[in-house]
Amino acid sequence: MTEITLAKVAEITGGVLIGDGARRICGVCSPNEPRSDMLCVVWEKNMLEGIPGNIAVLGEKGSIKGRDGVELDRPRAALVSLLPLFDRRRGDSPGIHGRAFVHENSIIGEDAAIGPGCVVSDGAVIGRRVVLQANVFIGKNVIVGDDTRIEASTAIQDFVKIGSRVTIHSGVSIGCDGFGFVPGDDGRWNKIPQIGTVVIGDDVEIGANTTIDRATFGVTEISDGVKLGVHIHIAHNCSLGPDCMLVGFIPVGGSSKLGRHVLAAGMSGIADHIVIGDNVTIAGRSGVSKDIKSGLTVSGFPAQEHMAEKRYQASLRRIKSYGERLKKIERFIRSIAAGFGKEDI
Amino acid sequence: MTEITLAKVAEITGGVLIGDGARRICGVCSPNEPRSDMLCVVWEKNMLEGIPGNIAVLGEKGSIKGRDGVELDRPRAALVSLLPLFDRRRGDSPGIHGRAFVHENSIIGEDAAIGPGCVVSDGAVIGRRVVLQANVFIGKNVIVGDDTRIEASTAIQDFVKIGSRVTIHSGVSIGCDGFGFVPGDDGRWNKIPQIGTVVIGDDVEIGANTTIDRATFGVTEISDGVKLGVHIHIAHNCSLGPDCMLVGFIPVGGSSKLGRHVLAAGMSGIADHIVIGDNVTIAGRSGVSKDIKSGLTVSGFPAQEHMAEKRYQASLRRIKSYGERLKKIERFIRSIAAGFGKEDI
Amino acid sequence: MTEITLAKVAEITGGVLIGDGARRICGVCSPNEPRSDMLCVVWEKNMLEGIPGNIAVLGEKGSIKGRDGVELDRPRAALVSLLPLFDRRRGDSPGIHGRAFVHENSIIGEDAAIGPGCVVSDGAVIGRRVVLQANVFIGKNVIVGDDTRIEASTAIQDFVKIGSRVTIHSGVSIGCDGFGFVPGDDGRWNKIPQIGTVVIGDDVEIGANTTIDRATFGVTEISDGVKLGVHIHIAHNCSLGPDCMLVGFIPVGGSSKLGRHVLAAGMSGIADHIVIGDNVTIAGRSGVSKDIKSGLTVSGFPAQEHMAEKRYQASLRRIKSYGERLKKIERFIRSIAAGFGKEDI
Repeated sequence: MTEITLAKVAEITGGVLIGDGARRICGVCSPNEPRSDMLCVVWEKNMLEGIPGNIAVLGEKGSIKGRDGVELDRPRAALVSLLPLFDRRRGDSPGIHGRAFVHENSIIGEDAAIGPGCVVSDGAVIGRRVVLQANVFIGKNVIVGDDTRIEASTAIQDFVKIGSRVTIHSGVSIGCDGFGFVPGDDGRWNKIPQIGTVVIGDDVEIGANTTIDRATFGVTEISDGVKLGVHIHIAHNCSLGPDCMLVGFIPVGGSSKLGRHVLAAGMSGIADHIVIGDNVTIAGRSGVSKDIKSGLTVSGFPAQEHMAEKRYQASLRRIKSYGERLKKIERFIRSIAAGFGKEDI
Repeated sequence: MTEITLAKVAEITGGVLIGDGARRICGVCSPNEPRSDMLCVVWEKNMLEGIPGNIAVLGEKGSIKGRDGVELDRPRAALVSLLPLFDRRRGDSPGIHGRAFVHENSIIGEDAAIGPGCVVSDGAVIGRRVVLQANVFIGKNVIVGDDTRIEASTAIQDFVKIGSRVTIHSGVSIGCDGFGFVPGDDGRWNKIPQIGTVVIGDDVEIGANTTIDRATFGVTEISDGVKLGVHIHIAHNCSLGPDCMLVGFIPVGGSSKLGRHVLAAGMSGIADHIVIGDNVTIAGRSGVSKDIKSGLTVSGFPAQEHMAEKRYQASLRRIKSYGERLKKIERFIRSIAAGFGKEDI
Repeated sequence: MTEITLAKVAEITGGVLIGDGARRICGVCSPNEPRSDMLCVVWEKNMLEGIPGNIAVLGEKGSIKGRDGVELDRPRAALVSLLPLFDRRRGDSPGIHGRAFVHENSIIGEDAAIGPGCVVSDGAVIGRRVVLQANVFIGKNVIVGDDTRIEASTAIQDFVKIGSRVTIHSGVSIGCDGFGFVPGDDGRWNKIPQIGTVVIGDDVEIGANTTIDRATFGVTEISDGVKLGVHIHIAHNCSLGPDCMLVGFIPVGGSSKLGRHVLAAGMSGIADHIVIGDNVTIAGRSGVSKDIKSGLTVSGFPAQEHMAEKRYQASLRRIKSYGERLKKIERFIRSIAAGFGKEDI
C-alpha cells in the first residue's frame, strides 16, 4: 500500500502545508466517508462542517484551521497529480499475447501490449506503447497512434485512423456504416454505401458503449482533445472541433459541425446538418435544431439562447394564475355588461 | 418437447384447477395468438373475450367459466414458477473451454463454466457455478460471486467486485473510468484519474449494453436486488440502494445517491449529486435535477411531485382558450372605453 | 485507385452526361471540400454556388451549366450504385479462421467467412456466404440466413433466428432476456423467465450497440426490410412491420406493435403495449404513450397529431403577451370599479 506524507502531498500538488507535514496518508477519501488514515478532499468550504478535527484535509485556501492538511486554489485540480499515486491498477505487459491474433501484414509498434482475444487485421498499423486490452477488434488498414489505450470488447472498423494518447473504453464501436437510405420505387429502402472513414485526433477520450459512424464519403472527424462520455453517437460526416466535451447520452446527427470547445450536457441532442460555433454550451436535455453562434449557451427544445429559454419557462409557470384572473375579470364585466346594453361579453 | 397436465400447472402455481386436470399443454401462449395445445395467459379479464372456448386459460380468480384452466390471484406472478418448465435453452457445461484464457494467478470456483473467448486476468477470483458465456473479459483482481452469469461481449474492468446470483447481459461495460476532467490553463482538459472501483451486490440484474463507471476514488455501489434494464449509465461514485429498478435509457449522474426501491421509468434521467429517498417513483422522460424525499412520485422536467406536474400540464393545455377570452374582454372594454374618457386600454 | 470516366458515371447512374465524357474521377466529394479529381455531389441547387467551375458535379436536372458533370432527378439516389465503385474496403475471405471456435454440432454454409475470435455454438446453422467478422458470439440453435453480415463484438443469444441479407453492426445484443419482474411478498423482485426468442426477417439492418430482447414467451419480431439505427432498444414481445425505420436512441417498450413503414426520428420513444398503424411518422424527441392510427404524423410528449402539437406549441409561445394584456385590463377595470360600487375586481 502506498503511503505518502502531507509534506509530499503539498509538494506534488503545489499546495501549502498546514500542520504536521510528517503525517502519512494511504489514500484519498470524500467528506461523506472521512478516514483518519486518508486525505479528505473538500471541494467546497461548507463540506468541512461535520468532518472530525483529526481528519487531514485537502481544501481551498484559507479553509483549513486547527487541523492537518494542504490548501490550494483549486483542490479538485490537484487530484490530477495526486490520484495516480494511489492507483492500484497495474499496467499491461508489452508483447503480443499468445491468444491474440495479429495478421502478418500488420505492423505492431515497440512495447505495444496486445492482449488475449485481440484481433489486428491485415494492413493495420499499431503505434508504440499502444495497449489493446482484450477482445479488441482492429479492422484492416486501421492506424492507431502511439500511447493509445483501447479497452476490451471495442471494435474499430477498416481504415479508421486514431491519434496518439487516445483512450477508448469498453464496448465502443468506431467506423460502422452511417445510416443512409433512399426509398426505392417499390417502397423499400435502398442503402447508400458508406465508403468514407473516421479520423480521430490526439488526446481524445471516448466513453464506454459510444458509437462513431464512418462518413458516407470523406471523413467523420473528431479533433484533438475531444472528450466523449458514454452512450454518445456521432453520425456520419460530423466534425467536432478541438476540446469539445460531450457528457453522455447524446446523439449528434449526420453532417453536423461543432466548433472548438463545445460543451454538451447529458441527454441533449443535435439534429443533422447543424453548424455550431466555438465555445458553445448546450444544457442538459436540450434539443438543438438550428445553427448556434459562437459563445452562446442554449437550452430547451427547440434549443434557444439560455436566458430567453429561462424567461419562457418562467412565463409558462405563471400561467396558473391567469385562469383565475380571467375569471375575475369576466365576472366583473358580466356584472356591468347589462348597463352597456350587452348581455355578456 | 415438455408436456405437463393442467393439474400439474395448478400444483406448481398454487392455483385452482378448473375443468380437465388431465389435459396436457406443451407451452404458454398469449391471448393474441391462442393455441389449443398451450396454456393461454390472461392478465386481465377483458382479454378473455374472443378467446375460443377450447383454449385452456391461466387467469384471475373467477374469470374462467365453461373451459379448462387454472385460476389464481395474480396470473402474471405464476409465470415465475411456470415458464422455466418450458425453457428450451440449456445450461452451459462446467469447465474451462479450450479457447478461453485463464491467467495462472486467478482462481476458478467449482463447476464454473468459462466459455470460448473468455479472458480471466491475473488475480481474478471466479465463484462456484459462475457462467462466463463467451468473449467475456474479466480484469485483474475482479471478484465474481457464486452462481453469477455473465453473457457474451461483456467487459468487467480491474478490481470490480460482483456479488452472487447476479445476471449481466451482453455488451455491458463495468468499471470503466468515470468522466472527470478539469480545465487546464491552456484551455485543454486534464483528466482526473479514476482510481476507485465498482461494487455490485447479490441478486442484481444488469441489462444489455448498460455501463457502470468506477468511482474517482472510493466505490460506485449497486446494492442487493437492484434491477437495471438496457442502455443505462451509472456514473462514478453513485450509490443505488437495495431493490432499485431502472427500466432503460437512463443516465444517473456522478455521485447521486438513490435510496431503497427507487423505480425509474424509461428515458428518465438523474443529474449529478442528487439525493433520492426510499420508495421514490420517477415517471418516464422526467429529468430529476433536485433531491427527492422518500415516498414521492415525480414527473416532468424539471421533475416535480407528480400531481403538481399533472396540474401544471393541464394548466398549459387550457391556454388555448385564454387568447380567445382575452380578445373578447378587450373588445368589450374598447367598446366602453370612450365613455370613461379613454381611447383604449 | 479506381478511376472512371464521367461517361461511365452517366451510364451507371442512368443520368445525362454534360460536358467531357472522357474526364476521369477517382472518387466522390462534397460541396464543402470540392476536388478537381473527384465528382462533387450536389443535393440542392443552391449548394452549387461557390463551387469552382473546374469541378465536375453530380447534380439535379438542369443544374449543371458550363461545367462537366452528370444530371439526374435524384442525385442522392445515384449514390446507391456509384459509391460501391470507390469502396476501398475489401471483403472477408471465406473459410473458418484458425482462431474461431465452431462447435462440431453446428452447420456452416458454403463460402461463409468465420473470423478470428468468433464463437458458433452447438446447434447453430450459419447460411451461405455469411460473414461473422471477429469476436462475434452465435448462441446455441441460432439460425443465420444466407449473405448476412455480422460485425465484431456482437452477441446473438440462443435460438434467435436471423434472415438473409441482414447487416448487423458492432456491439449489438440480440436475444437477451426481456425485462420482466413481479414483486414478491418480501418486496424483492422475482424474475419472470424469458423463454421466448427473437425472429428477424430478410434485408434488415441493425445499427451499432442496438439491443433486441427475446420475448417472455413467443417471439419478438422484426419484419423484412426494417432499418434500425444505433442505440435502439426493442423490448420483449414487440413486433415491427416491414420496412420500419427507426433512426437512433429510441426505446420501444414491451409488446408494442408497429405496422409497416413506420418512421421514428432520433430520441423518440414508444411506451409499452402501444399499437401503431402503417405509414406513421414519429418526430424526433416525441414520446408515444397512446395508440396511433395509420398514416398519421405525431410529435410532442405525450405525442399527438403533428399539426395539433404545432398549434399547441405556438399557443404556448404566445403566453408571454398574455401577462401584459391581463395587467392592462386589470388596470382599466380598477380605474372604473369605484363607479360601479366595487373596490376592486
